[in-house]
Amino acid sequence: MSRLASLSVSDFAAALASDAPAPGGGSAAAAGGANAAGLLAMVVRLTLGKEKYKSAWAELAPLVDRLDDARTKLLELVDEDTKAFDAVLAARRLPKETEAEKAARGQALDTANVLATTVPMQTAFFAHEALKVAPLVLDKGNPNAASDAWAGALAAWAAVGAALANVRINLPGVSDPELQRGFREDATLMEKTAAEALEKARALARTRGLAA
Amino acid sequence: MSRLASLSVSDFAAALASDAPAPGGGSAAAAGGANAAGLLAMVVRLTLGKEKYKSAWAELAPLVDRLDDARTKLLELVDEDTKAFDAVLAARRLPKETEAEKAARGQALDTANVLATTVPMQTAFFAHEALKVAPLVLDKGNPNAASDAWAGALAAWAAVGAALANVRINLPGVSDPELQRGFREDATLMEKTAAEALEKARALARTRGLAA
Repeated sequence: MSRLASLSVSDFAAALASDAPAPGGGSAAAAGGANAAGLLAMVVRLTLGKEKYKSAWAELAPLVDRLDDARTKLLELVDEDTKAFDAVLAARRLPKETEAEKAARGQALDTANVLATTVPMQTAFFAHEALKVAPLVLDKGNPNAASDAWAGALAAWAAVGAALANVRINLPGVSDPELQRGFREDATLMEKTAAEALEKARALARTRGLAA
Repeated sequence: MSRLASLSVSDFAAALASDAPAPGGGSAAAAGGANAAGLLAMVVRLTLGKEKYKSAWAELAPLVDRLDDARTKLLELVDEDTKAFDAVLAARRLPKETEAEKAARGQALDTANVLATTVPMQTAFFAHEALKVAPLVLDKGNPNAASDAWAGALAAWAAVGAALANVRINLPGVSDPELQRGFREDATLMEKTAAEALEKARALARTRGLAA
């Protein structure tokens, strides 16, 4: 079991609040995304269990595994994000007296920065996986749990945005211009599709009286 | 120590995902709000510690206690929300054969529904407290932690929205029309000011290259 994801909910929030720069927004985004996937999976389970919502079963059943997988991945990313951040700090602390040291440090820093963008990009991806199915879950899922599905959509959207901010803050440290450009484009596209999914979910939440 | 907030981050997400209707969106909103308050408090702490950002100290210093208090309250609300939900379920299960039983059940249900709206309203309030200060933290806080402040704003906004959805889904069960009307107005107003704070934070996040 990983370290941060095995902290209590309370201690994790305290670890975020402390003056240590990690864990920070990337790990919090992964934890929020995991909760979002959890909420949406619950709504699906509360739909599959009830004869009354049988007409939605075929469409919703495949989502259980997808959401459970996303949750598992996101919980791993809670720790991976903080490890990636620590690797950047470690690389920054390497000696830079001689030319050889400078080169080694530059290389280590570059590798660490690639990791520090790749990890939150994965967090954004899996939170986005949860967000993408949120409108369907809100539309066809057990209506008694509609507020849970909407809560899942909101948390997943927030996780995508926070993870992408972490990608963007670390991108300038990536030396490969192609990689930088690719990540930047992916981030722009994902932010756009996330906003669209949130708006779809919001429209459904409104018809159910859950949002103004 | 309360029950849900003492679960590990991982087990909490699994508890959300299970087919038990609680914990659900209300408890997840409180946990997300606590993480948001934690992230914003971290950014303030990382600002107060550095001579370089001395000009921001006077404005940011008072936020430490406010954000820490919000986090503490929100962590309590993680459990209170599930307790309130359980109280509604317990009231629904009361016997309703005789007139006396019906009256007692109606009374218990009403009390439980008042609690089930009051608790998420508190969650919305404290998450909103964190959200309100997010633009200032993003603007004046340590710029190296800007992505953490923006992540805090996003998570706080999602928590407000999810908590208000929980208020709204339970409101029809509250018999007092004045209380219903008051809560509905409060929810509308809070959703509006939350959206304004998020937009302020988003504008600042954009100038820092954290959002598109």
